[in-house]
Amino acid sequence: MEKRSISKQTIRRLPVYLRYLKEQTSQNVSATTIAGALDLSEVQVRKDLAAISDGGRPGIGYGTGALIGDLEHYLGYDQEVPAVLVGAGNLGRAILGYSGFAQCGLRICAAFDSDPNLAGKSIGQAKILSMDALDGVCKENGVQIGIITVPDYAAQGVCDRLVLQGVRAIWNFAPAHLSVPEGVILQNENLVASLTVLSKRLAERLSQNEKE
Amino acid sequence: MEKRSISKQTIRRLPVYLRYLKEQTSQNVSATTIAGALDLSEVQVRKDLAAISDGGRPGIGYGTGALIGDLEHYLGYDQEVPAVLVGAGNLGRAILGYSGFAQCGLRICAAFDSDPNLAGKSIGQAKILSMDALDGVCKENGVQIGIITVPDYAAQGVCDRLVLQGVRAIWNFAPAHLSVPEGVILQNENLVASLTVLSKRLAERLSQNEKE
Repeated sequence: MEKRSISKQTIRRLPVYLRYLKEQTSQNVSATTIAGALDLSEVQVRKDLAAISDGGRPGIGYGTGALIGDLEHYLGYDQEVPAVLVGAGNLGRAILGYSGFAQCGLRICAAFDSDPNLAGKSIGQAKILSMDALDGVCKENGVQIGIITVPDYAAQGVCDRLVLQGVRAIWNFAPAHLSVPEGVILQNENLVASLTVLSKRLAERLSQNEKE
Repeated sequence: MEKRSISKQTIRRLPVYLRYLKEQTSQNVSATTIAGALDLSEVQVRKDLAAISDGGRPGIGYGTGALIGDLEHYLGYDQEVPAVLVGAGNLGRAILGYSGFAQCGLRICAAFDSDPNLAGKSIGQAKILSMDALDGVCKENGVQIGIITVPDYAAQGVCDRLVLQGVRAIWNFAPAHLSVPEGVILQNENLVASLTVLSKRLAERLSQNEKE
């Protein structure tokens, strides 16, 4: 099946379907059931799944296992992507310790930290190494994704070094604006921005309640 | 100045402007300068800032301090919102330890964990307490936001308990689909979904490069 280009919003929902499906024991599952369980509209679910699988049958739904396979294949979870993480503080450790990323194909080859006391420790599948080892590990493993969890002032330096070692995508958790050369993908996780959206929604809701 | 309703995308950019402005020492700043520094289009920056401030002057730009004030006021950063965090693992500790949230008005009154060995420790401004103390702290402080950083299987139970104690907004970091009653705001931070978007972008870029 030739797949159409799919929006970022849809791509974000696909792992949610996958997580739900993996928890199910029934052989078949309908879009109606999925929509009900995940508080989504049925139309939305049908449209999303039609874009990545042609396994839906009227009156039966999707074969659960087959749909899981289609989702994993579309999302590239069956292909390993080598990555490194720089900055083994609490956030870095939380990412290293979360097994869910490995199921997405992410292989964190190693983590790096400037604190020499951390060198040699292991968290999850990854060992923490000194910054000296970064360039070698990137080259040996053909590392494609660099995860940045260092403080803001150190982030651009780390980013530049990763890019120099051939990293093609930066996943930035540092609260800093990073510059990358053309051709390198930069994705920022901005928790302050997320919190701000939540706070604004809350303030609007509370002011609505006062008016009512 | 009466403010129009602003999109979620714009709201997410406003804290980025604010962070940039706080790093500046010049008295005035133009939309052109901001756009250049943050890799945004000038039109975008002008539109975003016009929505929250009427302090822009042709040929001069915005007064830096005044624009910071307008942004903080619009974003509600000058109003304290009491919160609790449940789950003091690595991710929970990363959130507790990050001083940037306090600057957004978030006041984390306390953190809670089911591990009795953690009780009594302090991280950032917050003390870790046993789960027994949760209901009392929520009531005493009029807690509005509940931050969930527990494992997936525990998340719904924690969410229900927070809602029962009057929490109006849930910021969920657990990889679980949560149900909340109508009127309660739920915001999910889904890092697997973010990673998936990044991986897909990377795969598309690499396959384009191969074709070229």
